[in-house]
Amino acid sequence: MTQEAYREMWENLNLDIAAHDGLLGVLGKFYGDIYMSQKGRLQGMEYLDFVLSEVHGLRIKELQDAKAQGRKIIGTFCVFVPEELALAVDAVQVGLCAGADAGKEAAETLVPRNTCALIKSFIGFKLARLCPYTESCDLIVGETTCDGKKKAYEAFAEHAPMYVMEVPQTKTESARALWKAEVLRYMARLEELTGRKVTAEKLAEAIKTVNARRRALQRLNRLRAAVPAPISGRDVLLINQVSFYDDPIRFTASINTLCDQLEERIKAGDGVAPKDAPRVMLSGCPMAVPNWKLPYVIESSGAVIVGEESCIGTRNTRDLTDESGQTLEEMIDALCERYMKIDCACFTPNAERLDNVETMAKDLKVDGVIQYALMFCQPYAHEGIKVEKRLTAGGVPSMSLETDYSMEDIEQLKTRVEAFLETVK
Amino acid sequence: MTQEAYREMWENLNLDIAAHDGLLGVLGKFYGDIYMSQKGRLQGMEYLDFVLSEVHGLRIKELQDAKAQGRKIIGTFCVFVPEELALAVDAVQVGLCAGADAGKEAAETLVPRNTCALIKSFIGFKLARLCPYTESCDLIVGETTCDGKKKAYEAFAEHAPMYVMEVPQTKTESARALWKAEVLRYMARLEELTGRKVTAEKLAEAIKTVNARRRALQRLNRLRAAVPAPISGRDVLLINQVSFYDDPIRFTASINTLCDQLEERIKAGDGVAPKDAPRVMLSGCPMAVPNWKLPYVIESSGAVIVGEESCIGTRNTRDLTDESGQTLEEMIDALCERYMKIDCACFTPNAERLDNVETMAKDLKVDGVIQYALMFCQPYAHEGIKVEKRLTAGGVPSMSLETDYSMEDIEQLKTRVEAFLETVK
Repeated sequence: MTQEAYREMWENLNLDIAAHDGLLGVLGKFYGDIYMSQKGRLQGMEYLDFVLSEVHGLRIKELQDAKAQGRKIIGTFCVFVPEELALAVDAVQVGLCAGADAGKEAAETLVPRNTCALIKSFIGFKLARLCPYTESCDLIVGETTCDGKKKAYEAFAEHAPMYVMEVPQTKTESARALWKAEVLRYMARLEELTGRKVTAEKLAEAIKTVNARRRALQRLNRLRAAVPAPISGRDVLLINQVSFYDDPIRFTASINTLCDQLEERIKAGDGVAPKDAPRVMLSGCPMAVPNWKLPYVIESSGAVIVGEESCIGTRNTRDLTDESGQTLEEMIDALCERYMKIDCACFTPNAERLDNVETMAKDLKVDGVIQYALMFCQPYAHEGIKVEKRLTAGGVPSMSLETDYSMEDIEQLKTRVEAFLETVK
Repeated sequence: MTQEAYREMWENLNLDIAAHDGLLGVLGKFYGDIYMSQKGRLQGMEYLDFVLSEVHGLRIKELQDAKAQGRKIIGTFCVFVPEELALAVDAVQVGLCAGADAGKEAAETLVPRNTCALIKSFIGFKLARLCPYTESCDLIVGETTCDGKKKAYEAFAEHAPMYVMEVPQTKTESARALWKAEVLRYMARLEELTGRKVTAEKLAEAIKTVNARRRALQRLNRLRAAVPAPISGRDVLLINQVSFYDDPIRFTASINTLCDQLEERIKAGDGVAPKDAPRVMLSGCPMAVPNWKLPYVIESSGAVIVGEESCIGTRNTRDLTDESGQTLEEMIDALCERYMKIDCACFTPNAERLDNVETMAKDLKVDGVIQYALMFCQPYAHEGIKVEKRLTAGGVPSMSLETDYSMEDIEQLKTRVEAFLETVK
């Protein structure tokens, strides 16, 4: 990370330069330990390494350039915010900083201590002036997917340009009508913000762009079913994480190139781990950059992660938007339908998630599922109990871990993961 | 509590008789210590003492008699479930057991340990077969007011006849439309369950019945503004708690009689506490029977509680349903409007609650506000931070306490409450 070149930009974004330098230093070392230490990585991963090394540099520069051209930057924390609409008004949609302990003490003046690490982190990053994404945003779009986020956005709104979409909590017809109204309300807000209209032509193009990214990630996920696993779980997690930050067209092309290489590797029978390495699937809460602790613990214990059932994983890529709509109205309906397929723990009931977890575990021929919950995340903690029952009934071994972003429990996690891996093989 | 007379009824309800005997014993002693020890209580309170002594006896017998007459019993945990609709189909609506640690270990097999005590309690009471209300219900109506309850109802549904209403999370027009659809869906469910139709005539009568109860409780709350306070906070909490269990018409008459006595007392300048006793308002989470720990701690420290800003308090009684509707449609709209005025922490934003808390504190001439949160209750914990800021800005001293149903922290609570009371007078 060539910090000097970006100093002026970061100063203009009002970052705390000294603290931010420290953060990049830690992040760079952490990335080196967890990623660069891996053997047998594909050439295609070099692109991801580059993107991540420039995640606070070149990508932020691109956002500033887009702003200079009159384009708006939309920040989000959730897969419910339809990127298609942002693209249709020529805006750029990006994820915001959230995967590390930063500004925790300051965050706890705005939200309770018993709040999940992800929420405290996005507030902390903002209050500590450490996130160039948050500082670049013209609008930050929240949603009502959990009590923690819903209420935290109220506090966050005192410090950032917030807009909140109501995600319903059931999938009844009336709840779907509410969601459609929210999509239309958001579309109007975007049109107002950008001075551009969402047309059928622009939206059709945006739907194709986002679907193409989903198809590339679906392809990647299918290739992981091979034995031996052709790519590490750490690397796929990184890919999924980068998908929230990078330009969607460039990213899609890069992932398809990587998939070509994966196909070669599979044809040659090569793997990133031995044929008999335990195959593990992760399920549960999202893991934002640089939350790589648990994947590192699992893969450095001799297993390979072959699937991520999470918002930064299949929950974001499993369903495509129907592309057959001709009119704007038909496209909006297709969008609404696609987003209402998300099996988020915010819904009651959410039985489809149990089916999806079980199907995925079987398709990927996993030896076990590790459920990951951020401490104080109530929705996934509740569903964790059900997922475990379903997997047990289906003969799939599973274990549940609860953690946060600190490094204090890493040895404890390692002990538990190793004990689990011994039982599954 | 004359247990022998009800044994057969409890056996028929499949209660765990031995454990239930133990529970009633503890409850009776607890009630004696906290309530019967008070000096200078009004005669009207004898009715409440009787109701509570018979809360698992005579009232349950009444429910069984109602069932024998073909009436249905509806159980709820939330002020969002419109009792007017239940009354309009001649059903009986009651609250369920939730205010004590019961069946905790069993509950933790269905919901995470980091779940609030109220939720664990209602599940625990059911699994331990200790709640004759739950066992009497033909339908239990849940709602989506918090992540904890929303997800717990899914687990509870495996053990009880659950029905869930979606309460929206904003108050936009579309959210109101969702709520109306939910009210209509629930009405249809009640009609199906009871074989009776909700008519304009029946609903008008039900609206009047429930409004009359609210008016009686509003009158009680107004009378508490007198100095010295004419009634203890413990007693008013009990009244509010009993309002969820007792027959609404009988209860209303009793409370109005009590209010007549209060007026006499106020005229005579008599109070339940000295004129200069610190006047405290409670604000936050609901307190279900027999959760009297904190009120007892506060009042045995020399203060008097003069208001409860909670669901078992003013949140349930502040707003009336408009009675001018002539058609069923108009009445349904009035009902929907009334329920959407509830300033539950489930809403984002929920600015009206801040106004209501401040107004109430000033109207009641309080010396301080004690915010009460059940551990792991995210919505009220988040709002607690805002309420505290608002009260501080308005010159009202406040403190926040977080606790559960155990007795382990009682000395610690006492120390903190006493320290707070010393600062406010």
